[in-house]
Amino acid sequence: MSDETTPTGGTAGAVEQLAENTCWELLRSAGVSRLAVWVEDHPDIFPVNHAVDHGTVVFRTAEGTKLSAALADVPVALEADGYDAGTGLAWSVVVKGRAGRIGRAEELEATADLPLLPWQAGPKGVFVRIVPGLVTGRRFPVADPSVWRTALSDAHRAAPE
Amino acid sequence: MSDETTPTGGTAGAVEQLAENTCWELLRSAGVSRLAVWVEDHPDIFPVNHAVDHGTVVFRTAEGTKLSAALADVPVALEADGYDAGTGLAWSVVVKGRAGRIGRAEELEATADLPLLPWQAGPKGVFVRIVPGLVTGRRFPVADPSVWRTALSDAHRAAPE
Repeated sequence: MSDETTPTGGTAGAVEQLAENTCWELLRSAGVSRLAVWVEDHPDIFPVNHAVDHGTVVFRTAEGTKLSAALADVPVALEADGYDAGTGLAWSVVVKGRAGRIGRAEELEATADLPLLPWQAGPKGVFVRIVPGLVTGRRFPVADPSVWRTALSDAHRAAPE
Repeated sequence: MSDETTPTGGTAGAVEQLAENTCWELLRSAGVSRLAVWVEDHPDIFPVNHAVDHGTVVFRTAEGTKLSAALADVPVALEADGYDAGTGLAWSVVVKGRAGRIGRAEELEATADLPLLPWQAGPKGVFVRIVPGLVTGRRFPVADPSVWRTALSDAHRAAPE
C-alpha cells in the first residue's frame, strides 16, 4: 500500500496563492476542517464538520463542551486541506474571522437545510457561524504524498451535495 | 465510492478519553497534523508534517514564512486526527505546549534521523520542537464516516517507520 515517492525537488517550493473563489470552492468540497480558538492561555484545535452558507462558514457543536464555552464572538481560524492525487498537489485554505452562536430563531431556521453533520455522533445543540474577515489559500506540491494524503476531498466529492 | 451511513444515534456522544500513551501512539501513526498558533490578533492554522521525538513533537518549516516568524517560544496546540474504518471510530489528539526553534548544533544533529518531511516540497530550514505541557485525546463514533474519514492514519501505517 505504500506509495512513497522521492521528494519533488524539481518543483521545490512552488506555492500557488489561491483566489478567494477557489478557496470557497475547496471549502465546499471539504467536509471536515479544524477550528483554532484561544482557550484560557493557549490555542486549542477542534475538528469540526462545516458547511458553507452565503459567504460564511457554519458548524455544529454540543452545548456545554469546551469548544462551546470558548465561542463567544472571538477571533478564530478554520482550516481545511486536502490532496489531489490527479495533480499531485495539496491545498490548504484558512478562514479567519469571528465566531458567534446562531441564536435568533430565523437564523436557526435558515440553517436547517445546510448539509451540517456534527463532527461526532450525538446531540449537537449549538450552531456556530464564522463571519470571515480574511480567506486565504495555497496549493503546493507535497514532499511525500503517502504521508500527506487525506481522502477528505475525495470522500466529500462522492457525497451528495 | 460513497459509503454514507445513517448517523450512529445508538452510540450518541460516546466519547472515550484516551490515556496519554495511547495519544502518543496515535501521534506516531499520523504523518500530518495541524498547528494552531496566535499570529498578531488572530489564531492561525498550518498543516505540518510532524515526528515524535522522546516525548516531544518536532516539525520542519521554511525560514521566513509566517509560521516561522510566529514561532518564538509561544504557546501552541498541535492536533492530529484520523478515522479507523475497522472500528468506525475517529480520534483526535491535541498536544499543547510551547514551540521553540531547534538551534543548537547538537540538537539539530539529533533530529537528522527523524522521519521528518517538510509539509510542502522545497527547502525547509527551521526545525521546531514542541515541548508538551498537556497531551489529551478522544475517540468517538462519527456521524458520517464518508465525510469524516481521512486516510492519513492508513497511509502512514503503510509507510516505513
